[in-house]
Amino acid sequence: MSDHIYALKEIVGERYVLTEAADKEAYETPWRGEKGNAVCVVRPKNQAEISQVIGYLSTHGLSFVTQSGNTGLVGASTPDQSGEQVLLSLNRLTETIEINVANKSARVSAGVRLSTLNKIAAEYGLFFPIDLSADPCIGGMAATNTGGGRLLKYGDVRQNLLGLSVVLKDGFILKLDSALHKNNTGLDLKQIFIGTGGQSGVITECIVKLSIIPKQSVTALIVPKSDEILSKLLVACEDEFGDELSAFEGMSKNAIEAAFTHNKSNLKNGFYEAIPDYVCLIELNRSWNIKEGETSLDNALQMGLNNIIEKDASLIQDALFGHTDEHWKLRHALSEAVQNDGKMIGFDLSFERDKAIAFRSFVQKSLPENFADIKMCDFGHIGDGAIHCNFVIAEDDPRLQDAEFIENFKSWVFEKTVQDFQGSYSAEHGIGPSNQAAYEKYTPDRIKKIAYQILLD
Amino acid sequence: MSDHIYALKEIVGERYVLTEAADKEAYETPWRGEKGNAVCVVRPKNQAEISQVIGYLSTHGLSFVTQSGNTGLVGASTPDQSGEQVLLSLNRLTETIEINVANKSARVSAGVRLSTLNKIAAEYGLFFPIDLSADPCIGGMAATNTGGGRLLKYGDVRQNLLGLSVVLKDGFILKLDSALHKNNTGLDLKQIFIGTGGQSGVITECIVKLSIIPKQSVTALIVPKSDEILSKLLVACEDEFGDELSAFEGMSKNAIEAAFTHNKSNLKNGFYEAIPDYVCLIELNRSWNIKEGETSLDNALQMGLNNIIEKDASLIQDALFGHTDEHWKLRHALSEAVQNDGKMIGFDLSFERDKAIAFRSFVQKSLPENFADIKMCDFGHIGDGAIHCNFVIAEDDPRLQDAEFIENFKSWVFEKTVQDFQGSYSAEHGIGPSNQAAYEKYTPDRIKKIAYQILLD
Repeated sequence: MSDHIYALKEIVGERYVLTEAADKEAYETPWRGEKGNAVCVVRPKNQAEISQVIGYLSTHGLSFVTQSGNTGLVGASTPDQSGEQVLLSLNRLTETIEINVANKSARVSAGVRLSTLNKIAAEYGLFFPIDLSADPCIGGMAATNTGGGRLLKYGDVRQNLLGLSVVLKDGFILKLDSALHKNNTGLDLKQIFIGTGGQSGVITECIVKLSIIPKQSVTALIVPKSDEILSKLLVACEDEFGDELSAFEGMSKNAIEAAFTHNKSNLKNGFYEAIPDYVCLIELNRSWNIKEGETSLDNALQMGLNNIIEKDASLIQDALFGHTDEHWKLRHALSEAVQNDGKMIGFDLSFERDKAIAFRSFVQKSLPENFADIKMCDFGHIGDGAIHCNFVIAEDDPRLQDAEFIENFKSWVFEKTVQDFQGSYSAEHGIGPSNQAAYEKYTPDRIKKIAYQILLD
Repeated sequence: MSDHIYALKEIVGERYVLTEAADKEAYETPWRGEKGNAVCVVRPKNQAEISQVIGYLSTHGLSFVTQSGNTGLVGASTPDQSGEQVLLSLNRLTETIEINVANKSARVSAGVRLSTLNKIAAEYGLFFPIDLSADPCIGGMAATNTGGGRLLKYGDVRQNLLGLSVVLKDGFILKLDSALHKNNTGLDLKQIFIGTGGQSGVITECIVKLSIIPKQSVTALIVPKSDEILSKLLVACEDEFGDELSAFEGMSKNAIEAAFTHNKSNLKNGFYEAIPDYVCLIELNRSWNIKEGETSLDNALQMGLNNIIEKDASLIQDALFGHTDEHWKLRHALSEAVQNDGKMIGFDLSFERDKAIAFRSFVQKSLPENFADIKMCDFGHIGDGAIHCNFVIAEDDPRLQDAEFIENFKSWVFEKTVQDFQGSYSAEHGIGPSNQAAYEKYTPDRIKKIAYQILLD
């Protein structure tokens, strides 16, 4: 191995190949899941160095895992336990951030953080509209095809990516880096690198489409009259607010209570009485200039909700206004809060939108008889049919020691999701090691075979 | 051959295999280009019959071409001259149109016309937002990845397609027909069938995302102060109107004059004096309900244009209001009008948005010295950087008999587009026989090789 490390140092420079445990540790530790073990961490500075590194690794049959922001949740950016994988870090790949205002696009190196891109784009009134709780790098966002909280309005990364450059397994630098908004010349080859976690090549640069920063943005917390009408409420909001509706999120009582119990962000509890069973956070935004005499978006939201109530009294129990920031702080606090509430078993599921709500109700109803004392603390992007369906078991529950029990529970959730409700076991997190078994189980053979040929041949 | 025809009749029924010249003619004649010559036209009624037909054709090594709406402009849906190709028509594939209001999606058979889908979706206030002058079928729209006039706001077919079913070359029915808005489980295999003209399989069903029908829509014809400021005008409109801007089209004087000269749609000339050198059609739309006391979209448009003029006096020469229908009628009349103006040589080009405008200016300036007496009658989707860059030569020009002259001219336009202005030789029409030579010439070898493996292996 020392020969290989020497060779890698020759390409990227001695100080950019990390072999000491202390230096490697942060890279080996995923956002969620177990720490891995890398032979070394290699940190090339540009496309040319990446090409040489990958060419070298491939030539010598060395396995590697690519990491950009290391904020993924499925273990796809950290090495396995073997101690034989090289970790290819893209965190020095930050040289290019070129905003093209006339073209509403940006050329961005893979290792640039989303927040960094958005800070620079904001100078031109533009932003990359993928909204996430984390702050990933652009390359990883493309390799994961992240979705997030405003997919409803802006789409996922795939829908906002004009081009990319990628280094193939033999080191070839494949430039698919056009910045054209319309370009219909046969196979759109870049698609096979989006959401496939680097299996076919390492994305080194992205050309992203930028959107106009909203000029106004307002939110409300809506308490629906019952679970059953959630789907109708969503449709009523879309009908009333049209494409000003920029988010329609759902939060379960259990998740909200966890947030107030493990209150790390100084959250204010704006609920007058008990926490409702379910709360929707809806957001409207406007990207156009408000003209004199026009109604503010706050007013439009209140009037629109009144219209919805007037048309159908069965939908809305209560609507709480207040600070947009506070509403989002609560929503963003849920993920961590639920993890602090016991041992969490997390799922990232999606469904046709009405089936997402039916699935929630089904699980709530049938959980006690099938898996007693497991608490459902779900929240998610109801507007996209996606549910972060997280469950919590008390830390002292003896069943936690029973691997089979946990596996049975996971299988039960996956089985209901995929078979009974025609949903997906991964709404937005991707496959990675965490979902590899589900991929193997639920992907039809012919699709697996074709995907294998396309991605790995 | 008669054995094969007998076998095909056994699959689809005798009356659905057409062999008489008179029956075949409409199928063999493309929207633009030369009539082809098919052995027979086969019209299966559903997926199962298509599977058997394709399985049979593949087994016997028979070449075929698939046709859905036959409105494409690159000859991709009609047979060649050999008389050896089977024409597979999808026009009986119309059984399914299922609107899912809660999921804002529709499951549609490939042979359903866009207008038919939209008529049914309209009952629910929804539509499939790809706006075209033609009325293609859904399957062909996916196989071509059509873009159209409102890509600026709604994206192309790729961005509005949730799933599809496709029959592979061996007759296998591959179902990628989920209706999920969020689904991130590795390779998004459906992407390889979008925009690739049936090379890897015949699309039989699409699951499309629907949008809310705008509740208000207004247009204006804007005369820019000069060509040079067009790009700035576009950005100023986006900044002022945000995502209410649903179209930003451009029309050259020559194209407009052709429309009034060959006036087949009873167009009204709303220009007070001479036709301006260039006119932009901008459209705003709103999908939300207007509340009491709110400004109408007409007012918002006028006030917004005033704001733009106040901020920068160098952009707008004149703005004409009037009927939205009349404005679009003019815009949609251009394509046919230019064809009536002489012998048309058409190009469907796209660029980064500012380069589209630079390209226009360049061609206008350098055309006379390079190719005298060729008239540039361009129009297009300036908001997407796409130009239908059509040229007209007088019918009696002797150079029309000189194939080499025409070829040289085409090469000149392609060369400038791709090499000098980093544009695309096909913005939205696709490859097909018409653009095959350009594909061969301008696609890097490695990309061609990978695409070949993916599409044809």
